[in-house]
Amino acid sequence: MRILVLGMDGYLGWSITTYLSGADYQLSGLDSLFRRKWVKEMQSVSAIPIVSIHDRIKLYESTYNKKVDFYKGDITNYSFLSGVIKQTRPDAIIHFAQCPSAPYSMIDESKAVWVQRNNLVGTLNLIYAAKNYAPNAHIVKLGTMGEYGTPNIDIAEGFFEVEYRGRKDRLPFPRQANSWYHLSKVHDSNNLQFACRNYGIKCTDIMQGIVFGFELNSSQGEKLNTRLDFDQAFGTIINRFCCESIISHAITVYGDGTQIRSFLPITDSMRCIELVLKNPPADGEYRVVNQFANICSANELAVKVARICKQMDMDVQILNIKNPRKEAEHHYYNPDNHNLKKLGYEPSTDFDEEIQRLMIGIKPHKKRIVKYSKVLNPTIQW
Amino acid sequence: MRILVLGMDGYLGWSITTYLSGADYQLSGLDSLFRRKWVKEMQSVSAIPIVSIHDRIKLYESTYNKKVDFYKGDITNYSFLSGVIKQTRPDAIIHFAQCPSAPYSMIDESKAVWVQRNNLVGTLNLIYAAKNYAPNAHIVKLGTMGEYGTPNIDIAEGFFEVEYRGRKDRLPFPRQANSWYHLSKVHDSNNLQFACRNYGIKCTDIMQGIVFGFELNSSQGEKLNTRLDFDQAFGTIINRFCCESIISHAITVYGDGTQIRSFLPITDSMRCIELVLKNPPADGEYRVVNQFANICSANELAVKVARICKQMDMDVQILNIKNPRKEAEHHYYNPDNHNLKKLGYEPSTDFDEEIQRLMIGIKPHKKRIVKYSKVLNPTIQW
Repeated sequence: MRILVLGMDGYLGWSITTYLSGADYQLSGLDSLFRRKWVKEMQSVSAIPIVSIHDRIKLYESTYNKKVDFYKGDITNYSFLSGVIKQTRPDAIIHFAQCPSAPYSMIDESKAVWVQRNNLVGTLNLIYAAKNYAPNAHIVKLGTMGEYGTPNIDIAEGFFEVEYRGRKDRLPFPRQANSWYHLSKVHDSNNLQFACRNYGIKCTDIMQGIVFGFELNSSQGEKLNTRLDFDQAFGTIINRFCCESIISHAITVYGDGTQIRSFLPITDSMRCIELVLKNPPADGEYRVVNQFANICSANELAVKVARICKQMDMDVQILNIKNPRKEAEHHYYNPDNHNLKKLGYEPSTDFDEEIQRLMIGIKPHKKRIVKYSKVLNPTIQW
Repeated sequence: MRILVLGMDGYLGWSITTYLSGADYQLSGLDSLFRRKWVKEMQSVSAIPIVSIHDRIKLYESTYNKKVDFYKGDITNYSFLSGVIKQTRPDAIIHFAQCPSAPYSMIDESKAVWVQRNNLVGTLNLIYAAKNYAPNAHIVKLGTMGEYGTPNIDIAEGFFEVEYRGRKDRLPFPRQANSWYHLSKVHDSNNLQFACRNYGIKCTDIMQGIVFGFELNSSQGEKLNTRLDFDQAFGTIINRFCCESIISHAITVYGDGTQIRSFLPITDSMRCIELVLKNPPADGEYRVVNQFANICSANELAVKVARICKQMDMDVQILNIKNPRKEAEHHYYNPDNHNLKKLGYEPSTDFDEEIQRLMIGIKPHKKRIVKYSKVLNPTIQW
């Protein structure tokens, strides 16, 4: 299968590249290298040291004895993107080339516009480039569980059967996102749904829970590891809790910590994406999958991380701080994740082990996290 | 009431400017003059001759003996928009400054991106400029009934009470728009809803049916008339049917003509907007109103226009042509419009008279329409 990875240099882009290192997959990739720039802008670094994209590709090719065509560029440039698609003729296009941070998008007007424009235009360009040059390619697009917000009913997967005033229809499940970034994903979902209906494109839109961890394959050598961020904008909750713990910083829970979210270890994320690739939707189908392993509150997560630290002889405090975000802290939350299970996904049951692996993995880089620990402080508010 | 009209030079922008000519309103406006450029790009003209914006304003000021501050510029430029808002300190901001054409947005990749980016960035800039410099201003935003698409259930106004698996919630009504333009309005609706929730802004989002006509006040003098387009991109259905009829061109109905839409005469549109201005929502409220007078199919409209032509001694044919759009031609359609009625709106009952006024109004400009009649042909397909 010929796969083109948009955003190959990012957290998930590089993960999927190393995960799909087997003979079944012929990989190409592109990236603007913006993730490195954004994290620098947040005055932070990846907790896990990473090498240049040039060295990553070289090392990858020698480790796995397979070639990867890499193109440096920005998918908001249509001629660049369509050129790469013409060149690589992919069977599937994994679209991870977006700015993935809610706090970053909430900094000010210019960031709000930048994030929404960047994400929207990239996806629109992809729709046209696929339609024009790879009409049979399966677009695997990363959305987020955050698109749904926290409605007072069960969260279906993309669509739900609804009865209203005595009539029935299958309609898009309402989205109530809570940041410009999350809204950019909603816009993309709406655009992709239309593109499938109108142009016969096929797409799997993945509503992903919050991913954590970085190690996929201990035999790959640490220079092939993906990045792991812990700053307030690009450090997601479990990664951030673990980085806090490892440097004996309190685990900082936003608000009263009763807000509930869905989570999955990075290995689960990769397994799900491979399942999706192996089971494409029909031509013209816009398929939504909710991709997560576990549901819990921020408090429960904090307690879990603290307990694992204790087992590792580290004593960590939990500190509830003023919530920098406006979000419901007491709410119903019951999302479905049937669609991936139907494809064969068995969610990880050992969350604790996955968190422990992450703790062990970042331990050697403690000094690096200490040095940049100021970036843990949530100064961006909304 | 101090009112700032974004898009003052457009079809509806200039209409509301002349409509709100009374002493209760102190008007300012801005426009990029893009509408004139787009219609030129479609190799067309307004059926009704219009003067320059400079002359419009001069004539307006002398006719109504009141001053209008006009700023030429583009709201995708944040410093321009925020500068005007700082200067004018509006109580209400009417946001008509968008590219309003589905066919234009469907021409190709560059137009798709241009329209979505233009509309999205303009509204995001407005949200931030209002939040920062006019936090109490009422934002009156023009959406479209086309945001909803044609679901198989009644269309509520923005939100609906839904019961799902035994639980209830009031959720955003699902949107299934059918062009990049209509989707840009969906994106804006989602962004505005979040802005109200997050920043306490108040907004009325108007889901407007298809407007027709141009004359608001026969005493105003024809040089103060708004524009009226008939080309395939900016000419909406009734305006186009009337322009076709007046030059003895067949009334061209797309597809089998059974698709149903909602409509209103321009006088109704203006009355509704005034009602909305006089009855703002609460701080932080995102209020949706469905704004239309009548519901009928394209065929019914064509028959109506042909009948009125007959009464005016013109014999016009109706021709069903291949539908250039992908849209459901057989569907359920039953939208609510309670919210405006609760504010006092009484929909026009004499549709025929309104269409006749339009026919009489464009009659003197027959030659002009004949000259540009090529633009009636729907070459843009999706």
